[in-house]
Amino acid sequence: MKHLLGICDLNASEIGKYLDHAQYFSDALKSGDYDAEKHKGKIILHLFFENSTRTLTSFEMAAKRLGADVINWNRETSSLKKGESFMDTIDTLNAMHPDAVVLRHSEYGAPNYVSKRMDCPVINGGDSWREHPTQALLDALTMRQHFGKLDGITVAIVGDIAHSRVASSNMELLSRMGANVNVIAPGELMPVNLPAHGIGKFHDLEEGLKHADVVMSIRPQKERMDKVLIHDAAYFADYGLTHERMKAANKDAIVLDPGPFIRGLQISEELADDKSIFLYDKQVANGIPTRMAVLDLLLS
Amino acid sequence: MKHLLGICDLNASEIGKYLDHAQYFSDALKSGDYDAEKHKGKIILHLFFENSTRTLTSFEMAAKRLGADVINWNRETSSLKKGESFMDTIDTLNAMHPDAVVLRHSEYGAPNYVSKRMDCPVINGGDSWREHPTQALLDALTMRQHFGKLDGITVAIVGDIAHSRVASSNMELLSRMGANVNVIAPGELMPVNLPAHGIGKFHDLEEGLKHADVVMSIRPQKERMDKVLIHDAAYFADYGLTHERMKAANKDAIVLDPGPFIRGLQISEELADDKSIFLYDKQVANGIPTRMAVLDLLLS
Amino acid sequence: MKHLLGICDLNASEIGKYLDHAQYFSDALKSGDYDAEKHKGKIILHLFFENSTRTLTSFEMAAKRLGADVINWNRETSSLKKGESFMDTIDTLNAMHPDAVVLRHSEYGAPNYVSKRMDCPVINGGDSWREHPTQALLDALTMRQHFGKLDGITVAIVGDIAHSRVASSNMELLSRMGANVNVIAPGELMPVNLPAHGIGKFHDLEEGLKHADVVMSIRPQKERMDKVLIHDAAYFADYGLTHERMKAANKDAIVLDPGPFIRGLQISEELADDKSIFLYDKQVANGIPTRMAVLDLLLS
Repeated sequence: MKHLLGICDLNASEIGKYLDHAQYFSDALKSGDYDAEKHKGKIILHLFFENSTRTLTSFEMAAKRLGADVINWNRETSSLKKGESFMDTIDTLNAMHPDAVVLRHSEYGAPNYVSKRMDCPVINGGDSWREHPTQALLDALTMRQHFGKLDGITVAIVGDIAHSRVASSNMELLSRMGANVNVIAPGELMPVNLPAHGIGKFHDLEEGLKHADVVMSIRPQKERMDKVLIHDAAYFADYGLTHERMKAANKDAIVLDPGPFIRGLQISEELADDKSIFLYDKQVANGIPTRMAVLDLLLS
Repeated sequence: MKHLLGICDLNASEIGKYLDHAQYFSDALKSGDYDAEKHKGKIILHLFFENSTRTLTSFEMAAKRLGADVINWNRETSSLKKGESFMDTIDTLNAMHPDAVVLRHSEYGAPNYVSKRMDCPVINGGDSWREHPTQALLDALTMRQHFGKLDGITVAIVGDIAHSRVASSNMELLSRMGANVNVIAPGELMPVNLPAHGIGKFHDLEEGLKHADVVMSIRPQKERMDKVLIHDAAYFADYGLTHERMKAANKDAIVLDPGPFIRGLQISEELADDKSIFLYDKQVANGIPTRMAVLDLLLS
Repeated sequence: MKHLLGICDLNASEIGKYLDHAQYFSDALKSGDYDAEKHKGKIILHLFFENSTRTLTSFEMAAKRLGADVINWNRETSSLKKGESFMDTIDTLNAMHPDAVVLRHSEYGAPNYVSKRMDCPVINGGDSWREHPTQALLDALTMRQHFGKLDGITVAIVGDIAHSRVASSNMELLSRMGANVNVIAPGELMPVNLPAHGIGKFHDLEEGLKHADVVMSIRPQKERMDKVLIHDAAYFADYGLTHERMKAANKDAIVLDPGPFIRGLQISEELADDKSIFLYDKQVANGIPTRMAVLDLLLS
């Protein structure tokens, strides 16, 4: 494992290795009993071609919890605006010899392209609607902590399946790890092809929630739609999660969301505030040890 | 003392403790004789919802002089723009477990609100027109270094009292520490209520300067006024500080300003350049040990 | 050597000292055998009043490879916008006691002005069209590594000589170190006065390339021209570098470019991809040890 470009490149054993190491750091951060200077002197270059604060801050926190340092490259002031080609920008940064790169880019092919030109490990921090592998890993860690396993659990992913890199990476990961996956979306947010076999497609929320142990809500990503495809009130009426709606799922089902989540659109105020069901804070917290695990395995 | 949200929460003994510790770091930075890695591995999250460079840079310098690291969260690229609620943004950042947060926000209630949702110490880096506690502490440190005490000295605060968090925090602090305080402003920049008792109100500069040991100039904060209330030339004629005007104050009176200060509006070129009277540079320098003291006491 | 403001302030022996130290770090970064924490606890303040990513990232990498930390001051949110004078901004930052300052500014006189008000070393990261001394040093390091010397080699600088701080600093450095220098440009991009004696001026590319060991391409800096003086296709036809055109130079001549370079305007796709002739990546890589050398000599 030289790079982490997508869940699609990993088999179950490699995914398990990341998850085990993430669990190690999850415990280690609580006990404080780990080498917090293991990667002292390493410099991680953050190449974010799309806006991000959540993922960027999480990666920065993870790097610093390992003793590494971070340089946040700024696309706004970059030479791309002076006519430099993307290839030459990447070669320039590679020539500065960072120890690892975290890349976010709107283009499908960017992570593979960049990884081929870089001498150091490249971590995909999200590309297009295709992959967001560290998000899928932290979601899986959260589910595994809750249920003790991924194999055999049922996960219903609700919302903007068509535009979501998170939904896509989760389908890849969960199907490889033996979970049952259903996706629930209105027609205009449901892709024709899904990235894995055996996934159930539903337009009706209650139907799709049947037998679900985990309900993963995915925000309608209006910024990725050519025109706005949804009306907020109608969307909430049909696909918004509430305590009442959750009765269609298994009795002890939990709700996850990669964030940012919109109250009153994706989830009711009451359910968003019910920390016994909605484990969003645990997901965010798991982001740090998960990214520490990825950095540690690729830097070592 | 878990958080530092405002001078209004502190009694004289707590203020004295901060000032003593700030004096310790002021000496320590000069001698170099202190533990510059005391807070190694700690990560301070800077949450600045308003523009700032001076305060932000000062806090960043202070953190790094203690061996801590800093993450500058960027509101411009944050998920607030995608519809996330302020509460959920705060909960998200809290779930990443920073070791402390420095917050700047335009809303009056933000520091208290944030401190209640955060598990770590929260330091108010300035809110609304209400409080800027680290600025008041560094001003007090500068006065105490000059006069050896705060008790019994007379401080005249001149300028935009109505819109100034610095004026407000200084009134709170100085009155608690036994100083006499006067405020001087044109009617439209003078608030109806002041945050402490026993403060003299003056519209006339010369009258208000009588017996002053310290004259603190406060910039008219046009960016906080609904419409521009002042005319620059008239303001300087009535309230601009000059060597001549300073004759109304005590013989050895000093001038302070939280910065940025505007030459020709608040203060004459000649007085601004007279470092024996205008101790602005000392205030800025004192910002570092003052913020080190706050961070050190709250992180320990 | 307290500051590094321009090559114009250095004699051949001082330039040699920087280059020798840069070569030391170039070797040290490869072997890993150097004190990577030599400047631990030092804080470098980056004061970039002009956009930059390449130089900024290179300086940040260099500082961190020496164990120092960096604060990137943000002009966009600075108090200059509130009416603070440039002088007072500089004095404010000086009062915070950074260990060194790297300055980029569009004004000719800025580096000297700032160095006189700062108590710490000031490094010019590029000003106006006058000087970019660390770029000239890393270019010289690249040439010296390739030819074993600077004395007696011939360097042809092609392109926007009039607006380029890189061309200017290179002419200063190369003439001091005994190299022969020619400049090649259309009339509207050729300055009347050159910063050094004995430099050949050419309008014709092939003529100017004769006997050249090094061809340095300089991008037409449209952002610095009052009106756009060049037409892209015509420029490439007259001044674009290609394998064919390079036959006019010496047999083993190399091509350099400070970057960003524009394919199809300054250089053909084929030549840009020919890493045996176009040593751009080596220049970028040399930026790190060169800036480490400058920081180390000025901080020590």
